[in-house]
Amino acid sequence: MADTKVFRGAQLATFASAGAPYGLVENGAIAVSAGVIRWVGPKAELPVQFDTAEVEDLGGRLVTPGLIDCHTHVVYGGDRAQEFEMRLNGASYEDIARAGGGIISTVKATRDASVDDLVQSALPRVDAMIAEGVCSIEVKSGYGLAPEPELNMLRAARRIAELRPIHIETTYLGAHATPPEFQGRDANYISDVVIPTLRTAFDEGLVDCVDGFCEGIAFQPDQIARVFEAAKTLGLPVKLHAEQLSNLGGAKLAASYGALSADHIEYLDEEGVVAMAQAGTTAVILPGAYYTLRETQKPPIQTLRDHNTPMALATDCNPGSSPLTSLLLTMNMGCTLFRMTPEEALAGVTCNAARALGLTDRGTLAVGQRADLAVWNVARPAELAYRIGFNPLHKRIYGGQA
Amino acid sequence: MADTKVFRGAQLATFASAGAPYGLVENGAIAVSAGVIRWVGPKAELPVQFDTAEVEDLGGRLVTPGLIDCHTHVVYGGDRAQEFEMRLNGASYEDIARAGGGIISTVKATRDASVDDLVQSALPRVDAMIAEGVCSIEVKSGYGLAPEPELNMLRAARRIAELRPIHIETTYLGAHATPPEFQGRDANYISDVVIPTLRTAFDEGLVDCVDGFCEGIAFQPDQIARVFEAAKTLGLPVKLHAEQLSNLGGAKLAASYGALSADHIEYLDEEGVVAMAQAGTTAVILPGAYYTLRETQKPPIQTLRDHNTPMALATDCNPGSSPLTSLLLTMNMGCTLFRMTPEEALAGVTCNAARALGLTDRGTLAVGQRADLAVWNVARPAELAYRIGFNPLHKRIYGGQA
Ligand SMILES: [Zn+2]
Ligand SMILES: [Zn+2]
Repeated sequence: MADTKVFRGAQLATFASAGAPYGLVENGAIAVSAGVIRWVGPKAELPVQFDTAEVEDLGGRLVTPGLIDCHTHVVYGGDRAQEFEMRLNGASYEDIARAGGGIISTVKATRDASVDDLVQSALPRVDAMIAEGVCSIEVKSGYGLAPEPELNMLRAARRIAELRPIHIETTYLGAHATPPEFQGRDANYISDVVIPTLRTAFDEGLVDCVDGFCEGIAFQPDQIARVFEAAKTLGLPVKLHAEQLSNLGGAKLAASYGALSADHIEYLDEEGVVAMAQAGTTAVILPGAYYTLRETQKPPIQTLRDHNTPMALATDCNPGSSPLTSLLLTMNMGCTLFRMTPEEALAGVTCNAARALGLTDRGTLAVGQRADLAVWNVARPAELAYRIGFNPLHKRIYGGQA
Repeated sequence: MADTKVFRGAQLATFASAGAPYGLVENGAIAVSAGVIRWVGPKAELPVQFDTAEVEDLGGRLVTPGLIDCHTHVVYGGDRAQEFEMRLNGASYEDIARAGGGIISTVKATRDASVDDLVQSALPRVDAMIAEGVCSIEVKSGYGLAPEPELNMLRAARRIAELRPIHIETTYLGAHATPPEFQGRDANYISDVVIPTLRTAFDEGLVDCVDGFCEGIAFQPDQIARVFEAAKTLGLPVKLHAEQLSNLGGAKLAASYGALSADHIEYLDEEGVVAMAQAGTTAVILPGAYYTLRETQKPPIQTLRDHNTPMALATDCNPGSSPLTSLLLTMNMGCTLFRMTPEEALAGVTCNAARALGLTDRGTLAVGQRADLAVWNVARPAELAYRIGFNPLHKRIYGGQA
């Protein structure tokens, strides 16, 4: 087969072969052509048609699907280091608000930024993700909170995908917070800004999915439902920041719209878990925010397991509650803080992260999947979650290209 | 001045100039020759004698002293990923012990390793530290627990300092745990192995400092005192793993020997803090182990502050309780988990870490200090602790060399 490459001498965490944990195939081989996986399995069973292909021996290393970060706010203006420091020096939330801190400071910096500014400030964070074998990320708007700034965030996300070898799924999150000029008029903000801007963004081809923040400090379920109705009219899938600080039934609402995912879900109850399982909604676990906010309520991992609700893990990379760019560290946090298993953690940044994004062409090592691979200097898959602050990536292959 | 280089266009976190937090000098310059800082201060005040020196403009970046990791067990055999996975899959401590897990598995793997094996397995971890601007690290023995394996760990540490541009302080930690062959005979292990091996290691020039683990599950204060007496005879400084899981008065004992540091100290009481302050013993805070072991007792940061006890921060890099190689992440953990300020965190990996190692020629940006510098792509020093799992290092200068 012309232009085919065979990677061999590898341990494969396929998340596709039944039986072994991680779908592990020892002494495996993967045949790739035109950016797609053509064959995967034990080297000894490689069909003769691949005998003439170019070969790369991976020296016994571990190969996983290229990693997927399915929940990020990686595009934003400014940073919140000063606020982080003020708080640790004893400033109260009022002090910080008076000094212009909190999400509003990010909204201001984002509104002041051009698309190019947003791209330039996000690139080092995206590069850090790429350096850890990440091949696909989700990027949300939600710090513009006005038509043009929201569109600019999405344009920046699309632009990053042109500048770097990474796939980006964009999510419109106009319903992230109510901006100062609409304070006390949340419903007006939804009708006057969130929904019209969603339509404009859709017309420009900037939106792959629609998200909201359902919380006491953000939007109520009925307001989120209005945004989801607008998404439905446009044929866009939805997802939701739900049950992070309290239980408003957001996950259940999201499930009723067939949401791709419900995210955070620390306060999710069993009824919500069942609704998600029935709707095929993935639970996106975000330990970075839990860690940074020093929360104590953990997501209901065992209940999610009991109902076979798929669990993904993501950085939630954002300047306030999770200035985290390492998906490997996120895996460790999922295990250490929430007692996920290393296998659940790795599934959470591969097959289940793909599922949370509605992507069926990646996230496993199987015939027909994109050849997005991460090759690791580790002896066993558990090492990826075990180590803390260490990147054992040997090489990343994106669409068949190193 | 011949062969002098001036770095300018930089913000300097000197930890030497009085007044501003971080000893910050805006628009600063540093003159370096023969690996030593010759001048440091505001660019506008740079003496004319440096006018002919080679100049490097740092584009407004932040310069800090090269980082120092003052507590590591970075040399060891094997890893403990399998045990990490077993535990998360529900194995009990007995299950793990039966499967050969726990510290004994590391002891076995370390005994089975040659000096070269130990070096090769440690190098990727050391390289990860170097990549984050670390210029000096401490490395302990303590997984050999028999004469030759303990010496081999120290030989490996010395060898790494020849292979990489990094300064290594070695610490003899024979009194880390009692090996299986001495089970129930701790005192014999101290007399028959720990002290004689210390003398051999000293004769070979392998030891810069002597450490012990004072804890219910390790050694009692009177046993530690015997090791410290032996160190004293040899003129070696001491330090101690103390008050990690309970309060046995280890820090006070260490202080009575003028210890460089007492490390962990989650259970330290005010009496211990006072003893340390009076002896000039540095408190080494190790959030990685606290995080990994999911401890709830935090070190007495406010009491340490109240008594002006210097606080250092270190990775405690080890395969069991802290498989952490990122000193930047350690800074974030110090702030997030223990509410240290970003300034305390940065002092903890520079000036106070130097102090914890008894090194007076590094850890600050001041005339006469080694030119160990870290140059960062950040706008303000607090960003170093604020970000999670991101490395903003622009360049590292080790003894004046990039
Ligand atoms: Zn989010
Ligand atoms: Zn230690």
